[in-house]
Amino acid sequence: MATGWLNRIIGSIADQGRELFASRSGRPIGGDLATLCHDLIGERGEASGTALARAVVERYAALGPAERLAFFELLAAQFGPDQAAILLAADAYRRDAALANLLKLAAATEAPRQELFRRVNMAPDGTATLVAMREHLLDLLRDRPQLESVDADLHHLLASWFNRGFLRLERIDWRTSAAVLEKLIAYEAVHAIEGWEDLRRRLQDDRRCFAFFHPALPDEPLIFVEVALTRGIAAAVQPLIARDAPVADPAGADTAIFYSISNCQKGLRGISFGNFLIKQVVADLQQELPQVETFSTLSPIPGLRAWLKKEGRADGDAAAASERFDPASPDATVMKAPLMRLCARYLLQAKKDGKPVDPVARFHLGNGARVERINWLGDVSAKGVRESCCLMVNYLYRPEDIERNHEAYANEGRIAASSAVRGLLKE
Amino acid sequence: MATGWLNRIIGSIADQGRELFASRSGRPIGGDLATLCHDLIGERGEASGTALARAVVERYAALGPAERLAFFELLAAQFGPDQAAILLAADAYRRDAALANLLKLAAATEAPRQELFRRVNMAPDGTATLVAMREHLLDLLRDRPQLESVDADLHHLLASWFNRGFLRLERIDWRTSAAVLEKLIAYEAVHAIEGWEDLRRRLQDDRRCFAFFHPALPDEPLIFVEVALTRGIAAAVQPLIARDAPVADPAGADTAIFYSISNCQKGLRGISFGNFLIKQVVADLQQELPQVETFSTLSPIPGLRAWLKKEGRADGDAAAASERFDPASPDATVMKAPLMRLCARYLLQAKKDGKPVDPVARFHLGNGARVERINWLGDVSAKGVRESCCLMVNYLYRPEDIERNHEAYANEGRIAASSAVRGLLKE
Amino acid sequence: MATGWLNRIIGSIADQGRELFASRSGRPIGGDLATLCHDLIGERGEASGTALARAVVERYAALGPAERLAFFELLAAQFGPDQAAILLAADAYRRDAALANLLKLAAATEAPRQELFRRVNMAPDGTATLVAMREHLLDLLRDRPQLESVDADLHHLLASWFNRGFLRLERIDWRTSAAVLEKLIAYEAVHAIEGWEDLRRRLQDDRRCFAFFHPALPDEPLIFVEVALTRGIAAAVQPLIARDAPVADPAGADTAIFYSISNCQKGLRGISFGNFLIKQVVADLQQELPQVETFSTLSPIPGLRAWLKKEGRADGDAAAASERFDPASPDATVMKAPLMRLCARYLLQAKKDGKPVDPVARFHLGNGARVERINWLGDVSAKGVRESCCLMVNYLYRPEDIERNHEAYANEGRIAASSAVRGLLKE
Amino acid sequence: MATGWLNRIIGSIADQGRELFASRSGRPIGGDLATLCHDLIGERGEASGTALARAVVERYAALGPAERLAFFELLAAQFGPDQAAILLAADAYRRDAALANLLKLAAATEAPRQELFRRVNMAPDGTATLVAMREHLLDLLRDRPQLESVDADLHHLLASWFNRGFLRLERIDWRTSAAVLEKLIAYEAVHAIEGWEDLRRRLQDDRRCFAFFHPALPDEPLIFVEVALTRGIAAAVQPLIARDAPVADPAGADTAIFYSISNCQKGLRGISFGNFLIKQVVADLQQELPQVETFSTLSPIPGLRAWLKKEGRADGDAAAASERFDPASPDATVMKAPLMRLCARYLLQAKKDGKPVDPVARFHLGNGARVERINWLGDVSAKGVRESCCLMVNYLYRPEDIERNHEAYANEGRIAASSAVRGLLKE
Repeated sequence: MATGWLNRIIGSIADQGRELFASRSGRPIGGDLATLCHDLIGERGEASGTALARAVVERYAALGPAERLAFFELLAAQFGPDQAAILLAADAYRRDAALANLLKLAAATEAPRQELFRRVNMAPDGTATLVAMREHLLDLLRDRPQLESVDADLHHLLASWFNRGFLRLERIDWRTSAAVLEKLIAYEAVHAIEGWEDLRRRLQDDRRCFAFFHPALPDEPLIFVEVALTRGIAAAVQPLIARDAPVADPAGADTAIFYSISNCQKGLRGISFGNFLIKQVVADLQQELPQVETFSTLSPIPGLRAWLKKEGRADGDAAAASERFDPASPDATVMKAPLMRLCARYLLQAKKDGKPVDPVARFHLGNGARVERINWLGDVSAKGVRESCCLMVNYLYRPEDIERNHEAYANEGRIAASSAVRGLLKE
Repeated sequence: MATGWLNRIIGSIADQGRELFASRSGRPIGGDLATLCHDLIGERGEASGTALARAVVERYAALGPAERLAFFELLAAQFGPDQAAILLAADAYRRDAALANLLKLAAATEAPRQELFRRVNMAPDGTATLVAMREHLLDLLRDRPQLESVDADLHHLLASWFNRGFLRLERIDWRTSAAVLEKLIAYEAVHAIEGWEDLRRRLQDDRRCFAFFHPALPDEPLIFVEVALTRGIAAAVQPLIARDAPVADPAGADTAIFYSISNCQKGLRGISFGNFLIKQVVADLQQELPQVETFSTLSPIPGLRAWLKKEGRADGDAAAASERFDPASPDATVMKAPLMRLCARYLLQAKKDGKPVDPVARFHLGNGARVERINWLGDVSAKGVRESCCLMVNYLYRPEDIERNHEAYANEGRIAASSAVRGLLKE
Repeated sequence: MATGWLNRIIGSIADQGRELFASRSGRPIGGDLATLCHDLIGERGEASGTALARAVVERYAALGPAERLAFFELLAAQFGPDQAAILLAADAYRRDAALANLLKLAAATEAPRQELFRRVNMAPDGTATLVAMREHLLDLLRDRPQLESVDADLHHLLASWFNRGFLRLERIDWRTSAAVLEKLIAYEAVHAIEGWEDLRRRLQDDRRCFAFFHPALPDEPLIFVEVALTRGIAAAVQPLIARDAPVADPAGADTAIFYSISNCQKGLRGISFGNFLIKQVVADLQQELPQVETFSTLSPIPGLRAWLKKEGRADGDAAAASERFDPASPDATVMKAPLMRLCARYLLQAKKDGKPVDPVARFHLGNGARVERINWLGDVSAKGVRESCCLMVNYLYRPEDIERNHEAYANEGRIAASSAVRGLLKE
Repeated sequence: MATGWLNRIIGSIADQGRELFASRSGRPIGGDLATLCHDLIGERGEASGTALARAVVERYAALGPAERLAFFELLAAQFGPDQAAILLAADAYRRDAALANLLKLAAATEAPRQELFRRVNMAPDGTATLVAMREHLLDLLRDRPQLESVDADLHHLLASWFNRGFLRLERIDWRTSAAVLEKLIAYEAVHAIEGWEDLRRRLQDDRRCFAFFHPALPDEPLIFVEVALTRGIAAAVQPLIARDAPVADPAGADTAIFYSISNCQKGLRGISFGNFLIKQVVADLQQELPQVETFSTLSPIPGLRAWLKKEGRADGDAAAASERFDPASPDATVMKAPLMRLCARYLLQAKKDGKPVDPVARFHLGNGARVERINWLGDVSAKGVRESCCLMVNYLYRPEDIERNHEAYANEGRIAASSAVRGLLKE
């Protein structure tokens, strides 16, 4: 808990650094951000890199949205690779494929902004700044394809730096820092956490929560998973997340239900942690609770209702369900059989580019899980009604099948499913 | 101190992972290393990356020297970039310099072994394995230029991963883990540490020791510096490292003497930490001990005597000194004046490619320090006699001059020196 | 964050211990609590002390209120000292004041339940159990003076074990564990914390919070103080605790305002930590923020209005204020002068046993502070109106005066006060 | 590793405290130690307790041996209980055994130096100072029985403060702080550790070392045990402690051999930790290594040869062994049978006050272990020859027998032994 002291000391060291190294010349370090960036990758960066990097971090933090756009356009325009140099290097390599020529070609194709980003990273909060930059950039990207080159460079660096070997898995519980816990409340993307009391229930003895952290972002979970320890595979989510659900003895559990996985950092979009997280948590739980032998998700089916609507043009059941499903209406029961069948079709057969249309299915099936069970009235929240007519699905992770499932899926597009779910197709 | 438990748990998790994911198929994970590597960057690596990576790490650790050579030759031959693909991508880029074509060209120039290394890094001890690989490779490189491409890729990745922003500065003292302290004894490269009692003296109240660590190598210092807190700039090293030197009150010190800097990881050769380390430690000490206002090294001059020998063909003093300098002979005093003069010439004027011949001078002057004082009988050890006729030199780090000194040095090859040292040239 | 693992391991070790040591005999460790207690201080306790102690802890935790009363009555009746033995030992000592006889007398006067408590303390959660026991006991004590002997023994032991030398001062901030932070919300006794957002404001950059912890109760603050860093001595509390108060730069502060001190453990009643806490925090803040030179409380005056009521029989102003003070009425301003005067009288002159009637005054004046300023409309909350007609007071801690103030107060009952407050008396 | 900073900060806080609270008056805190002690338990101690306590700690640390003696005599003479007050209180209690009178009697029998010690404990290093005081005192005690009363008070307090519930069991390995590890080298009392390389072997993968720590003495182990993980019960100690013994895989072990237990703090003499330590380590190892099912010591028999000498007057074998046992002589083998028999007699039958003469036997048998096996040539070191004619003994800890063994031993003096050892008696 001495962190306060240490942070202050570190901050003050950096302050001193800045003053020490900036006092000298006509160009104060508080100067123009473009100049600072050019300095940072130039000769001054060799001597005063950390101080310059810190200045860039501070200046960037103070930018408004319009200035940020200008900054990214600067990065695109002035810190990209030199086309002529690339072509010259390619010619030299064509004449002589020596290592030196290859390295020159590789160097020429690398945009100077990559070195800029590496140097920004030297500052305190450098990594956090680069992740924030990418978050801002992704927002701007839709309408500005000219910035894609900047994004490609940030993505390349961050993917290398957030290599799984550098991540720490940490268990999150009620003894975790409030600074981390509030991030769970903010980032939970599947079943919203309604404040601290709600969160507390999700961290009690019959629940587990794990997150990946990167050493350079100590208070920022990258991704976290919420797990319920149960007897048998849970079929409905509301009992799991009810704030007043009785707390069970974890020693009595035989199943771990992964009921929510949330990515936390928009700036790391496209860098995948979920597959590693689930497998590591399975291994951890096997170690901690040897009697837990079943590992399954309880997952939403976010695209089902939209797909039903499209299908509705050809299929009366789908039309009916997509138009007027209401779990409270006596009608709902009548719809059960057709909806279960349609859902099985959606999960197993509705594809795009050879992969399932449903993004959650794509994720878990790509990880080597199988479609285990479709659950009627699995999620009766408004969101559940709206997205999937209250259906939920369990994806089962059987460690011994994961690699086979994955390869069949990756090589042949084959989707693993229980016979029960396959059976629904035939009804 | 619960680390034992945790390590065991982590190890056992990894064991389980391996078993879980490996039990399935015809190709056991204990298989041939080349196959493992191909699997790891292929489809299997997607599903079972961590287990495969761990298998590679284990297999590599068990290789003997001859097998390691074969492994590196495999990496050079089978995991390099595809020349034809590069040329095709270059052609496409020449026709249309679109981002997609640039990215394809960049991807084509990147050797697949870079991805292999990134995946190896996912295993426990992955980073340590890659650093060890490079250490082994550097040993082999002298006679096998065909392996240079492998080294270039390892260097590229490690330089990015060991970015200063990911390093932690830690103070080392007698409460530090023995597993770290024994590394200091092993790695001290300037003034050998003769066992634990010798080390203990260097960690007492009037000494400081700081090291950089990387989170993925928690027990391995990357570089460390030893500092003595003194009154005035120390002129001789033996009093500083004498095991029975009286311990002074650090509150009375006005000067910090950096008397030894040692790199620890051969596998990180060419990735420079020293400049950052010195500047960070200066800032730290200013914070901790505001009354310490002078920051200076007490440095060896490793190339002096060899240079004197060469100079000896033209200069009688140099010849005499290089041939028969002996600090215990009455003669030595006679040699003082000419040796001091020659040393000043050596440090300020003996250059190669526009930079000082002396490697230590090159390092500190490149960092922005200045040559402050040459010390007669500064190091009377056998090594001191042999390398530099017992002379030592102080390089002074004045925070307010560092950037100016560095730029003058980098841009114009100008060497900063005190007027006293400059004066020696004229004698 | 590995605490989960460790806790589980520790728990499971204890489980094993219990099974190992309990399997043997006719009297299972789950047996009757009275028997367990007798066993624990007897021979079985020598061999199986930890397991028996754990059994006592578990059995005690399961007791309902009526059973707890029975348990304390058992402790009073069966685990007290032996009167005859005391008298015999006193006789022996009277005949011969040898050390052996003195020790026997001391041993005879010590109730066996003290040894019982010391052995209960060996169990995991033993210390927490004893603190909880005393909390329960204090509740029962009012109507059952026969239990006072049990309380005297618990108090004696806990006072020795919670010696200031064993306490750790820790800074509390937003990175502190939620398990600790929720205790602040629960225990804040002066200005209630209304949930997590309210708490967060009190932990921001211009606030400090410190608590004492005992190593055996790691998640339980014993006492905590909330501090605001301000310019000048704050005169009103609502601006300090407003959730949306702007966050100031602590570097600009010259004053630290101790605006709330709360004891957390009812079971430690009568063991005083506040004096140490304030002085330690003053020293800490001087270290962290050298520019902060004034240390003052902003304190409630909880007994003022009740005293005014009593005074009201003789003093019309007091009667008026106690009967109908309302800060929102135009009348209030008219009352200011008489109320300030009455308050000065209350603080400086209203005494009981030679000490101030007001408990907060008694605490701070006993610590060596002085009455610095009385603040009109210092606390306009309902509680402020009700208790003190919205008046608050600053007690000033001037390190150089503390000892003198304390001695004058302790020896002569003299109360230190600023001339401004003294001046109010004469108006 | 931020401990350096923190220590300095804490030190400096204490410095400030001292200055702040001491600046005022005629009696500077650097004053006479006797006066300081009187002040500390008097009124000044209320206001400036921590500063006064720190002054006492510092003054005590500076005392030479003669001054220490004078100090203890002062404590005996001036800080003892008031005999007349005790007798008065006893009279009052005799007339009326009310709680108030009992408490007064208890208070009167408690020497004021107990309160003095409790207040000294408030200083930084207070606990360490009190432990050191008792160590010094114990040295002086032999010739000065008048100091026993001081010792009784220190022992009473320390026994209460070092309650097992406040101790932390920590595993010690090569990652432990050098400041702790050097204590092992210094304190090992059974099989000396010859420097750091020797120590390192004892901390490798097939060894375990555990120690108890008290939170107030973070770098000071109180007691530690060294364990070898073996297959079968080890019969000789030299193979276990050989520096170059091959390191076995702990997963292959079925037995844990406790081959050395050392108390570290002379100042805690008479406060027993060994029993707790062994049982806790057994539980820990069962948790960590479930396949380890046998827990045994390999223990010296320190009193054997001296006993043989005494027995020699009546027994020719004993005389021969005690006079001329030499493991290297061909004679030795001839002595094996009689020596084994005599050793069994020594361990099982040689008693004093109904307990075994041998101190190690007394310890383990009192803990509930049994005599399992006597080992010929178990310790061939000079010490082994000298003390026990090279014999060693295994005491077996079978968790399920511990309580029964202990009670039979404690109540009836019955010694548990294997039939093999009992059989030796009959030979």
